[in-house]
Amino acid sequence: MVLLDKIKNKLRFNYRKKRWPGLIEAYKQYLPVTKKTPIISLNEGNTPLILSELISNLIGNGTKVFLKYDGLNPTGSFKDRGMTMAISKAKEEGREAVICASTGNTSAAAAAYASRGGLKPYVLIPEGFVAQGKLAQALMYGAEIISINGNFDKALEIVRDLSSEHPVELVNSVNPYRIQGQKTAAFEIVDDLGYAPDWLCIPMGNAGNITAYWMGFKEYSKIKKNLKLPIMMGFQSEGSAPLVKNIIVKDPETIATAIRIGNPVNREKAKKVRKESKGDFQSVTDKEIIDAYKILAKEGVFCEPASAASVAGLIKNKNRIQKESTIVCVLTGNGLKDPDCAIKNNDAIFRKNIEPSLKNITKILGY
Amino acid sequence: MVLLDKIKNKLRFNYRKKRWPGLIEAYKQYLPVTKKTPIISLNEGNTPLILSELISNLIGNGTKVFLKYDGLNPTGSFKDRGMTMAISKAKEEGREAVICASTGNTSAAAAAYASRGGLKPYVLIPEGFVAQGKLAQALMYGAEIISINGNFDKALEIVRDLSSEHPVELVNSVNPYRIQGQKTAAFEIVDDLGYAPDWLCIPMGNAGNITAYWMGFKEYSKIKKNLKLPIMMGFQSEGSAPLVKNIIVKDPETIATAIRIGNPVNREKAKKVRKESKGDFQSVTDKEIIDAYKILAKEGVFCEPASAASVAGLIKNKNRIQKESTIVCVLTGNGLKDPDCAIKNNDAIFRKNIEPSLKNITKILGY
Repeated sequence: MVLLDKIKNKLRFNYRKKRWPGLIEAYKQYLPVTKKTPIISLNEGNTPLILSELISNLIGNGTKVFLKYDGLNPTGSFKDRGMTMAISKAKEEGREAVICASTGNTSAAAAAYASRGGLKPYVLIPEGFVAQGKLAQALMYGAEIISINGNFDKALEIVRDLSSEHPVELVNSVNPYRIQGQKTAAFEIVDDLGYAPDWLCIPMGNAGNITAYWMGFKEYSKIKKNLKLPIMMGFQSEGSAPLVKNIIVKDPETIATAIRIGNPVNREKAKKVRKESKGDFQSVTDKEIIDAYKILAKEGVFCEPASAASVAGLIKNKNRIQKESTIVCVLTGNGLKDPDCAIKNNDAIFRKNIEPSLKNITKILGY
Repeated sequence: MVLLDKIKNKLRFNYRKKRWPGLIEAYKQYLPVTKKTPIISLNEGNTPLILSELISNLIGNGTKVFLKYDGLNPTGSFKDRGMTMAISKAKEEGREAVICASTGNTSAAAAAYASRGGLKPYVLIPEGFVAQGKLAQALMYGAEIISINGNFDKALEIVRDLSSEHPVELVNSVNPYRIQGQKTAAFEIVDDLGYAPDWLCIPMGNAGNITAYWMGFKEYSKIKKNLKLPIMMGFQSEGSAPLVKNIIVKDPETIATAIRIGNPVNREKAKKVRKESKGDFQSVTDKEIIDAYKILAKEGVFCEPASAASVAGLIKNKNRIQKESTIVCVLTGNGLKDPDCAIKNNDAIFRKNIEPSLKNITKILGY
């Protein structure tokens, strides 16, 4: 019994049992990998689940709102979860190069993991449509960047055609391994809470992430008895809402560039998620997104505008939420990816060119 | 024995025993907090320890080099570790406002934690010397920013005087709670490895972090029997090396802005660390820093230039390292904090204005 007590004690007090090895190693029994798979990892995943008292109080009625801050992945977005899988499998299959079309987060993740694994990353970007932080990343991580005179859809068309004819692996979200990696975020939420939330609020662009989370919750429910599945709430920007409106949007427009996608690859899968989970797809305006972006920052969580769509959507549904619900809002990317947006959209008091005297500054502080 | 097996099994396979609660809650028995302390946390800490095969191979001789990537803290730097402590204690003491002088990382962390805790953050910055990402953060997190016509030293002088006369808490690194929080990074490294590294390589600005790590290793060695303490290697930029040269540098100059400090607050403490650990202080050039910054990015780890000083320093000491050493390099900040530096300093191939035809792109890829 001494040993038993010792182990119990360890379980109780030590939060860091061992070094987090990255999500493939941690969840390998749930992933399509074998002992032969060369795991290319940056110890991604294991991101914090942050309680937001501010947003919980905004919703009221005993609701607890948690933020799954996936912007703290190694390259600053949830894309790392899928990319560790996609690149590991590409390497296992003997590929020497990978390619993607991207407006940012995918290219950063692809470049980082490919370079780490010794594969050559090619990235097609639409000229002039990539946030500064994301461009900086792709450049640093060693991608060969090809900036085309065309939009994202054109870039995707080219990389799809090219990868079907040549031995370069396509790592856009059509790559099936991406969703496999991404589903681990749902595992982490259940591991952290001990149960699944009542609602999961998530931004939708290509709708790969909502598909992945649902897959994760469902798979875990087979292993963890009595796991009640969440209602899946997907949010899009009003100017880029092909799933909400069930159309193709020719020229999607929104400040939330990471979800500015007019014809989502995972349309049918996402509709199935909505049906199975008794969820809903709704749109939020750019103003609502920016309001939520500011609320989150006041809570100390700086995310991309696209990420804030999940919180903007939650706030809109305030009156539909049952008493004492637990809600998780997924924050997909780090705010540092797009500093321009922050500099243009904030309520800070910024006093410039102040004479540096004690008297002067004391007066400003009102003492 | 069935229960024992069950627990053992859990210890073995489940990496995420429970939700990471932030570093104060996780390590409270080692920190100056009581049950009355209102903990202001963003679930900081628990950052990945990434094995770098590339740098391990560069050093050779069976060396294992790990990167403690503290740029994955909530506001993107190690400052969060100290700030969760400083703000929690300020709140416990009934403060309603905090102030700091900063060129970036401190102001971001101070603003985030203060806002989260309901305290008003004031930030004094030297006009024109703050990287874009860091400025974006302070603005978003809700700081009142006062940009002065003067340098960092002047700003620090004013906030020290002001906080000694008025009820506004100073949260610069002179605040003693900062180091208490920062020491937890050493705990995490020991928890992860099961032992302390042979060398710890770390950038030095104000030298608070090297002091904190040493404090952490020493405190843990009292609890964990047979813990061999590391040799502490502190690195500064050649143009800003007051500790290496044992002087005050009037006009420090380096690309590594986060360690551009001419007269470190923790000078005497750092010298004691060097002596006790049989360590060394050395300088690296801006070119060596940028070379290391690029090597790290090729490994998939994008850090601030200042962070890369630890790796630049390690590389310089290649021939001094004993066979089969374990080395940890501390990466203090996220590369996204300073996108301009990345855009100006990279070796990427960036092809612009490319006509978007399959033929054209195929040719570029060499197929």
